[in-house]
Amino acid sequence: MEVKIYSIPVKVKLLDLTTGGPLVIVMHPNDMKELGINIEDRVKVCGANNDDITAIVNETTRLVKEDEVGVSLELAEKLNLKEGQEIFLEPSSPPESMLYIKKKMNDQVLEKSEIYKIVNDIIENNLSQIELAAFVTAMYINDLNMDEVEYMTRAIIDSGEKIKFEKPLIVDKHCIGGVAGNRTTMLVVPILAANGLCMPKTSSRSITSAAGTADTMEVLCPVDLPLEKIKSITNKIGAVITWGGAVSLAPADDIIIKVEHPLRADPRGQVIASVMAKKASVGSNHLIIDIPMGPDTKVKTLKNAKALADDFVEIGKRLGIKTEALITKGDQPIGRAVGPALEARAVLRTLEGEIFDDLGEKSCELAGVLLEMTGKAEKGNGFDLAKKTIENGLALKKMREIIKMQGGKSTVTSKSIKLAEYKKNVLSKREGYIEQISNKKTNLLARIAGSPKDKKAGLYFHKVVGEKVHKGDILFEVHAENKQKLESAISYLEKRHPVVLKKIIIQSVE
Amino acid sequence: MEVKIYSIPVKVKLLDLTTGGPLVIVMHPNDMKELGINIEDRVKVCGANNDDITAIVNETTRLVKEDEVGVSLELAEKLNLKEGQEIFLEPSSPPESMLYIKKKMNDQVLEKSEIYKIVNDIIENNLSQIELAAFVTAMYINDLNMDEVEYMTRAIIDSGEKIKFEKPLIVDKHCIGGVAGNRTTMLVVPILAANGLCMPKTSSRSITSAAGTADTMEVLCPVDLPLEKIKSITNKIGAVITWGGAVSLAPADDIIIKVEHPLRADPRGQVIASVMAKKASVGSNHLIIDIPMGPDTKVKTLKNAKALADDFVEIGKRLGIKTEALITKGDQPIGRAVGPALEARAVLRTLEGEIFDDLGEKSCELAGVLLEMTGKAEKGNGFDLAKKTIENGLALKKMREIIKMQGGKSTVTSKSIKLAEYKKNVLSKREGYIEQISNKKTNLLARIAGSPKDKKAGLYFHKVVGEKVHKGDILFEVHAENKQKLESAISYLEKRHPVVLKKIIIQSVE
Repeated sequence: MEVKIYSIPVKVKLLDLTTGGPLVIVMHPNDMKELGINIEDRVKVCGANNDDITAIVNETTRLVKEDEVGVSLELAEKLNLKEGQEIFLEPSSPPESMLYIKKKMNDQVLEKSEIYKIVNDIIENNLSQIELAAFVTAMYINDLNMDEVEYMTRAIIDSGEKIKFEKPLIVDKHCIGGVAGNRTTMLVVPILAANGLCMPKTSSRSITSAAGTADTMEVLCPVDLPLEKIKSITNKIGAVITWGGAVSLAPADDIIIKVEHPLRADPRGQVIASVMAKKASVGSNHLIIDIPMGPDTKVKTLKNAKALADDFVEIGKRLGIKTEALITKGDQPIGRAVGPALEARAVLRTLEGEIFDDLGEKSCELAGVLLEMTGKAEKGNGFDLAKKTIENGLALKKMREIIKMQGGKSTVTSKSIKLAEYKKNVLSKREGYIEQISNKKTNLLARIAGSPKDKKAGLYFHKVVGEKVHKGDILFEVHAENKQKLESAISYLEKRHPVVLKKIIIQSVE
Repeated sequence: MEVKIYSIPVKVKLLDLTTGGPLVIVMHPNDMKELGINIEDRVKVCGANNDDITAIVNETTRLVKEDEVGVSLELAEKLNLKEGQEIFLEPSSPPESMLYIKKKMNDQVLEKSEIYKIVNDIIENNLSQIELAAFVTAMYINDLNMDEVEYMTRAIIDSGEKIKFEKPLIVDKHCIGGVAGNRTTMLVVPILAANGLCMPKTSSRSITSAAGTADTMEVLCPVDLPLEKIKSITNKIGAVITWGGAVSLAPADDIIIKVEHPLRADPRGQVIASVMAKKASVGSNHLIIDIPMGPDTKVKTLKNAKALADDFVEIGKRLGIKTEALITKGDQPIGRAVGPALEARAVLRTLEGEIFDDLGEKSCELAGVLLEMTGKAEKGNGFDLAKKTIENGLALKKMREIIKMQGGKSTVTSKSIKLAEYKKNVLSKREGYIEQISNKKTNLLARIAGSPKDKKAGLYFHKVVGEKVHKGDILFEVHAENKQKLESAISYLEKRHPVVLKKIIIQSVE
């Protein structure tokens, strides 16, 4: 209800702060009472030239006196306010989208226009942390139906920038995460690009794992490429591997994620919209979704994995993106390396033909599916073509092109990658078979050792699941860039160990 | 999982700000990466004397450089930090209660100890706005069962101060609100105290209505009484009418309400816990809950009103408070006056025996129930005793005692109350019967006229529902303390009118 109430005059006091989120003013409680407003309510701040802007109110008796208003630098700049200047404040309503957030809290289905309004208010920074948290919580509890997910995806796409490429076949992959060492992207991209497909891959940095693809690729070359560069490189050589955070493909999503993170809440519909919007923004038309299933991944049961897979495929269909979702084994780390430098070395070793373990195998499986989807390989021959692309050196050649175009050294080899100065071999205390390696503890251990901030920190496994170990064998190496972090990692190991040996005797009863 | 990771040294930069809520530090993004933390994560801030304290992290590149940390004045004071001093930061986990908030988000039932932990973290200021908003939203959507409401009530009681009175019969009333002019408390309290009951009434100020009981009582005397004063006055004369916000009876609740307000969300269980905790804190053992039902009140249907009434009674039983919940007519304002001074005058007029309209009638009904519950009146005679207490002047005498003890003038009369300088008579444009007066529009109009900040602002109805009006009759007066606000109110009236005349012809078809 838009009602012109009345305004009160106040004097500007410039405060040396910026909020990042919505604009905020601080008022004296007596002035708030005068306007009939409370903390977190909104006021219209009316400047000199009939400009006005809406801000959220906080209360203070310390920073401003009665008849003064404290304004942040951002707000002062927007309205061109000077210290001591007289301006007017007027009560204002919450943004319209708050009605729709409330609707979702009441478990009602949102219309397309309502979802667009919410997403618009998010990118315009019109919603407070409290309101955003309520929205995320409501989506988490009451879920979005397929129509809502579609609208959310489209609204996020429309909120950001888009890239169009020259070639017709734009492929992409996404992994919903949780598996240590899972650097398949850095193999899939050069394999596919070497086969004539176009793959402008934007990846994330790690939030809770030991390394993200962007962290690992950064060992080889810069990854914070602007949009124009992503476009020109991809048009030229068919691929990039960059950090998605450097470009503004889905700004609404970036803001939502900042609230999801502290709540450890990933509303299913929002996760799908977030992934699919970023793929659509770069014009992908063939996409695979890797859904690792395991005790430490986001999806723990086949039933849930299947439901999520179906939803991804359905939204892909609605957006005109041919999508295949693959439920993969996610109960243990992939490959033997964890941490940016060690993982980058493993990728190069694989491309150089030196090793071909489960990292190479999984990458060729994934690449194979996309080769078949796009008609580059016949049904059933995708894996073989992918593997051949590694064996004949074309994938390595393409990877070197990518590295060079992004500003790295194209002469890089697995041997030229520098490793950490501090290292500790962790030995097996008994004989047996490796039964399990925990993703969660592996990631945590690598993080304590300094990964991903310290590029050279991480783990390297000598033994993986199923292998036989003797007492005194090296289970894995811990790498760190300084002594303190290596010691922290070792002392953590005393309490929790990522590797579990098979127990033959389950229990002994006397 | 409590894992000692490692710490980084940083130099203190004192920032001239206070947060009010949880402690906050601002860090440079490079240091955040070094610690492996994100915005809204927590760190342990370790000071000089092995003291440490947990704070929530915000990011800035402007306020601090790398290897610096910006700390608020509150935090600096707690750890005795000086500008430039070296301290250590260490990643820290979210408070344990975040697990239980997540549990409620997942629609699981919380244990007693879990609810206590949440309430404790709320009053210790350990939860961020995002986390609190998620908790409120989760309670709103997933609701609390009766056990959870009981534990929440007890946890809130235990979080605050308590008062014990000398007399055995402590009575109280609470209205869940939404009805304009509904100042029954100011009649019920003196009636009951005059009959020997003890009624230490803490009331609220208005948030969205034209006036709360505390705003209105404040016309007659101060209402921000400290705990000791509430105790001594009540022990002496049997009653007070004070502002609850001046005492710390339920600090946890005060914090939760600050988040509920911007979301316009009143989780049912939380509302019950909030009300009952405040009553239990002052040792009430006989209680009535007034649940007005109407289109603009919180409860719109008899079914919902009944369910809420049942829950209040059930929690009362569990706490040992004899509770009766009364579903009352809430579709229109009570009495003729809206706004603090006008309502205070109406209360005094009623006590002086000058008028006895629906305000007097409702007050005697409510008082009557408590007189019967406590055995002061026989079943069926409560209303009569209450009305007699007005007629024989004892209620007025008691009210004057209360006003005097709280620091007001005991010689006050309805005629001595000063009214506003600016007044506008709003006339009827046609003949008819008053069909409806909207609470919502009445409240909003009075607020635009300046109520409750301007004590003398408000409305006075010449005609109420059911009464006959002629063209040109005065429907109501608008009072304001200045011209601008009176004009704002009048211009609002042109768009929306609180008074609806009965339509004889529903529709005309040609």
